[in-house]
Amino acid sequence: MTTPDTDTLANALRALAMDAVQQAGSGHPGMPMGMAEIAVALWHRHLRHNPANPDWPDRDRFVLSNGHGSMLLYALLHLTGYDLSRDDLAAFRQLHSRTPGHPELGYTPGVETTTGPLGQGLANAVGLALAERLLAEEFNRDGLPLVDHHTYAFVGDGCLMEGISHEAASLAGTLGLGKLIVLYDDNGISIDGEVAGWFSDDTAGRFDAYGWQVIPAVDGHDVAAIDAAIALAKDDDRPTLIACRTLIGKGAPTKQGSAASHGAPLGDAEIRAAREAMNWPHAPFVIPDDVAEAWSARKRGERDETAWRSMFTRYAEAHPEAARDFERRLAGELPEDFARQAQQRLEAVAEKGEKLATRKASQQAIQAFAAGLPELVGGSADLAGSNLTLWDQARPVGRHGGGNYVHYGVREFGMAAVMNGLCLHGGLRPFGGTFLMFSEYARNALRMAALMKINPIFVFTHDSIGLGEDGPTHQPVEQTATLRLMPNMDVWRPCDAVETRVAWQAALEHTATPTSLVLSRQALAAQPRDATQLAEIRRGGYVLAREDGPLDLVLIATGSEIQLAVEARTRLADEGVQARVVSLPSTFAFDRQDRGYRDAVLPPGVPRLAVEAGVTDYWRKYVGLDGDVVGLDTFGESGPADALYRHFGLTAEAVTARAHQLLAPTPASQEVSA
Amino acid sequence: MTTPDTDTLANALRALAMDAVQQAGSGHPGMPMGMAEIAVALWHRHLRHNPANPDWPDRDRFVLSNGHGSMLLYALLHLTGYDLSRDDLAAFRQLHSRTPGHPELGYTPGVETTTGPLGQGLANAVGLALAERLLAEEFNRDGLPLVDHHTYAFVGDGCLMEGISHEAASLAGTLGLGKLIVLYDDNGISIDGEVAGWFSDDTAGRFDAYGWQVIPAVDGHDVAAIDAAIALAKDDDRPTLIACRTLIGKGAPTKQGSAASHGAPLGDAEIRAAREAMNWPHAPFVIPDDVAEAWSARKRGERDETAWRSMFTRYAEAHPEAARDFERRLAGELPEDFARQAQQRLEAVAEKGEKLATRKASQQAIQAFAAGLPELVGGSADLAGSNLTLWDQARPVGRHGGGNYVHYGVREFGMAAVMNGLCLHGGLRPFGGTFLMFSEYARNALRMAALMKINPIFVFTHDSIGLGEDGPTHQPVEQTATLRLMPNMDVWRPCDAVETRVAWQAALEHTATPTSLVLSRQALAAQPRDATQLAEIRRGGYVLAREDGPLDLVLIATGSEIQLAVEARTRLADEGVQARVVSLPSTFAFDRQDRGYRDAVLPPGVPRLAVEAGVTDYWRKYVGLDGDVVGLDTFGESGPADALYRHFGLTAEAVTARAHQLLAPTPASQEVSA
Repeated sequence: MTTPDTDTLANALRALAMDAVQQAGSGHPGMPMGMAEIAVALWHRHLRHNPANPDWPDRDRFVLSNGHGSMLLYALLHLTGYDLSRDDLAAFRQLHSRTPGHPELGYTPGVETTTGPLGQGLANAVGLALAERLLAEEFNRDGLPLVDHHTYAFVGDGCLMEGISHEAASLAGTLGLGKLIVLYDDNGISIDGEVAGWFSDDTAGRFDAYGWQVIPAVDGHDVAAIDAAIALAKDDDRPTLIACRTLIGKGAPTKQGSAASHGAPLGDAEIRAAREAMNWPHAPFVIPDDVAEAWSARKRGERDETAWRSMFTRYAEAHPEAARDFERRLAGELPEDFARQAQQRLEAVAEKGEKLATRKASQQAIQAFAAGLPELVGGSADLAGSNLTLWDQARPVGRHGGGNYVHYGVREFGMAAVMNGLCLHGGLRPFGGTFLMFSEYARNALRMAALMKINPIFVFTHDSIGLGEDGPTHQPVEQTATLRLMPNMDVWRPCDAVETRVAWQAALEHTATPTSLVLSRQALAAQPRDATQLAEIRRGGYVLAREDGPLDLVLIATGSEIQLAVEARTRLADEGVQARVVSLPSTFAFDRQDRGYRDAVLPPGVPRLAVEAGVTDYWRKYVGLDGDVVGLDTFGESGPADALYRHFGLTAEAVTARAHQLLAPTPASQEVSA
Repeated sequence: MTTPDTDTLANALRALAMDAVQQAGSGHPGMPMGMAEIAVALWHRHLRHNPANPDWPDRDRFVLSNGHGSMLLYALLHLTGYDLSRDDLAAFRQLHSRTPGHPELGYTPGVETTTGPLGQGLANAVGLALAERLLAEEFNRDGLPLVDHHTYAFVGDGCLMEGISHEAASLAGTLGLGKLIVLYDDNGISIDGEVAGWFSDDTAGRFDAYGWQVIPAVDGHDVAAIDAAIALAKDDDRPTLIACRTLIGKGAPTKQGSAASHGAPLGDAEIRAAREAMNWPHAPFVIPDDVAEAWSARKRGERDETAWRSMFTRYAEAHPEAARDFERRLAGELPEDFARQAQQRLEAVAEKGEKLATRKASQQAIQAFAAGLPELVGGSADLAGSNLTLWDQARPVGRHGGGNYVHYGVREFGMAAVMNGLCLHGGLRPFGGTFLMFSEYARNALRMAALMKINPIFVFTHDSIGLGEDGPTHQPVEQTATLRLMPNMDVWRPCDAVETRVAWQAALEHTATPTSLVLSRQALAAQPRDATQLAEIRRGGYVLAREDGPLDLVLIATGSEIQLAVEARTRLADEGVQARVVSLPSTFAFDRQDRGYRDAVLPPGVPRLAVEAGVTDYWRKYVGLDGDVVGLDTFGESGPADALYRHFGLTAEAVTARAHQLLAPTPASQEVSA
């Protein structure tokens, strides 16, 4: 058995990609065929991983940012020896297969992050590389480099056109993430055709401006050249961009070099001709033994991981506490006494009964939790002093060394996607802040966190017209509701310091759910609660103020509007109407309670009036057509917060009046009712 | 009366800014004080505008992308002679004032676009400059340059950190927008402090890589130097970035040069000291006559506009048709016979009854409307062939010359904000496409369109799990609902070619509302309608298939799920249940109908079952707690569309079964009901 040459190794990738796409009847052969030699150079010669254990903590991380080329990754995982069979490849893009259309975290061993929405993979890679740096600084000891690996990403023209590529690359350059190595598939083609008409950047110059090492104009079909470039990249303390000139769909005789090879099966005739031209006579999905043997990384992987494990044993002997912490954190577990301590502290917060902005209460929560959770990595998109995400022991991450606070700059989308990368690495727990409005800039990265079932914590402050004078561009109206509509996103809008503390605790306890903390700029009064109520907060909704007689009306509110509901309840009581106030800080948690609990909080048949300084439609879910909602279905205005609340009819008087209307309806008041 | 020197002119801006912020008790003095000389150079020496007529079509456009520095703009508008009084300035950031916290289109004469969300102003400016280019190519004739003006933008560090700055600048460089001149306030400070820790780009190098002319390291407090740089900029056929080194808050003795001057009043003592240092003894808001006289641009403006008007008269004589078209388009009016022609064509579409994807039906609509609407400028974020936004007469916009189709590249956010700029200019009507999922990348620009009451048209295709194999990263679940929650955004999700045509017509007729067209990848059957139904589509909701006896149930559906509802109605009828199908393509339009019409479509008291391949919570607004929703509250999966619809229970059988459950509820089926 002779050792196959690099052409053969590359052609094995090409064949698997074109055959799988053809079999699926859809998919993207162009990228895998164009990046085949790049993949050989990286995966065959550099990547340090163990296919038998995709969770080996010190593996190199690989991100396919141009995720539509998923078949390249699946082919690599299959060939190097991951638990991904020929049958899995043949089921490409089929329901319940391990080979979905884009790489999906959790579906396929060896897939480090879900990609497809362009540019985000690059930002995830920045997060992964940052995590490596921070953990290395924290855990490595003399001669015991527990954390010492590279992060590689493949990116395409699409990734580099996206704005997030700017945010992520600029941050990576500033932070000097030297172990980040990005291979750019510079094929000059995107879906609309030759990119020259819409993308004429000097990308090398651009990345040079970010402080990256740029290795330009590498022949992307010359394995030796790419191999050498990767070696140079490893040898530099800046992040490196290796720009590889490639031919999209290389190997497809008539379609290579054109958009025709990008996003559709090549067709039987083209594949036949490609097989012939590549001298690849094997049937679809068949890999000859010598090629399989040459591609397998199992032996090397086992050797590398074994060496690391033996180092870890020495490490654990020398630094038992650090080793335990490392293992706990990689397992994603909280310290054993976390819940007990949190409960004690919560009771102290309740006892204190301080009136303060929930963003300030959030800062107190961070301060309280951070000491026991060294995995926390905070940050803000240039609003540290407004989001209040800094705490006393926060140490900014700079160009060198460690730290636990990232000044992300004015880069909301980049921040969120980098946070996702920090999460994905393991060992760290990121939280990051911006104004709630600018959650919109980051929106799709929040969704990716929810989709991937990871658990970053987003601190969104200035959550309503209550922010005042900055006006409608900065005043959230629909944002809280739209975040709640995102599957697997837990949104908390707490009404005071106590609920804020519970929200933080819930966020920290989530293992597979991201959290959005929606916090006020303005100070909010502390609400009194008994022990039962205190315990019920974590159920997402509970009776905050009970009726004093037969129940006439349920007032439902969140956050800053709890104050209005509480005051309206008192006024109504004076007027002979018995209302209760239900605080509903997390609809996500509340909706997961059993029917009995939910009915006890919101008794069926009793009219309901919801109050929230935001769009009303969302609340029909709880008040139905027979209830009503006091909210805001227009954009805000610039002015002092108090004036705005009055202007938009968000006052205790207005809530009281609407309650009366609801209970004794006139025809005009029932516009929406059925 | 001596002519005041440039220091005095600049200090007038400083005084107004610091006094207004002080009076408001909040705001951003740092930027206006730091950019005062830049403002003098541009507004006093270059800007061609007529304060007496902010709508003069050929005025230079000015965009304050760092919109938190709004007081600089208000001071400039006041001083140059716009209808913005001293009292208006003194009411800075107060409710109902003409001087809101950030510049808001429509509130203040002379404000060209609403800014504040960073980076978007720059992209708006790219759109404004592109509009100028396209209109100049279309309308200008020998010796009659009807459209010939510059677009200027001020940007700060925040704008340049944002990803959208990459998208917009890269596109502007590729398109060679030589009349775009951007002045960068390079003050080295952002909210978190000195930017070096999070923003170390070589910005000059970066813009050079975009193909811009870069004039680096200009002293931002040297009016002559800035003046010269602007002259150079005007003389180059590339867009120009003038990087001005400035001191934030310049003039505030102890706070200048630090973040302390950025976003809070300076305080009385600091202001007093600043007055002294600037030799500005005047009371707050008082401008001495000689300074007022020197700043006024009214005479120059009147002269410039008069000259242009006389040219326009000559133009109208020589090219009467073009002149009429120009005036119609600038007025934002559709051609006179638009509605009649549209109706005729709609009837033809109904007659034809073709089964096709609504994205294809959208393309047919574009083809039909484009001939009569030369103002249409199409485009796509690199998905022309998937969004089907191209039509036969589409001419791509290139580096030179005109065109009516923009290949925006993979830049969704940039596209949307550039489209906003095209709208804001007047004379053009942009539409642009991407996958519905990636509306999230553009989300805040859609919101800005809605907030500004402008009317771009967003073509969002691949609107559900119906897109199939690309999987959950590409499958919208919550996006249609979240778009509907945005105030003043009209979302249409049509069920067939006829509804698609009506949706396009509604979108084109909107003058103050943006539209999101939510379109299927997959083919959808044509639904039969009588003339009344055809006419009712534009009301947003109507009875598509009526019951055959006493009404038992209302099935509500949109888009691709209409087919399921129609089939379920037939099955139910066979089983003795009389259901009607209500098609609700635009909840925006339907909610604006009178009560009588809405009740006729959705009779009160009759159980309702909604069907949409997306999150269910939104539909509680129409079905209440007593109804039910067949939808999808999880993320999608990768697989063929048919398999996914079955997997997620979106079938006529499932709808029928849920209808029976709803009508004869068992306890288990009523989980959500009250």
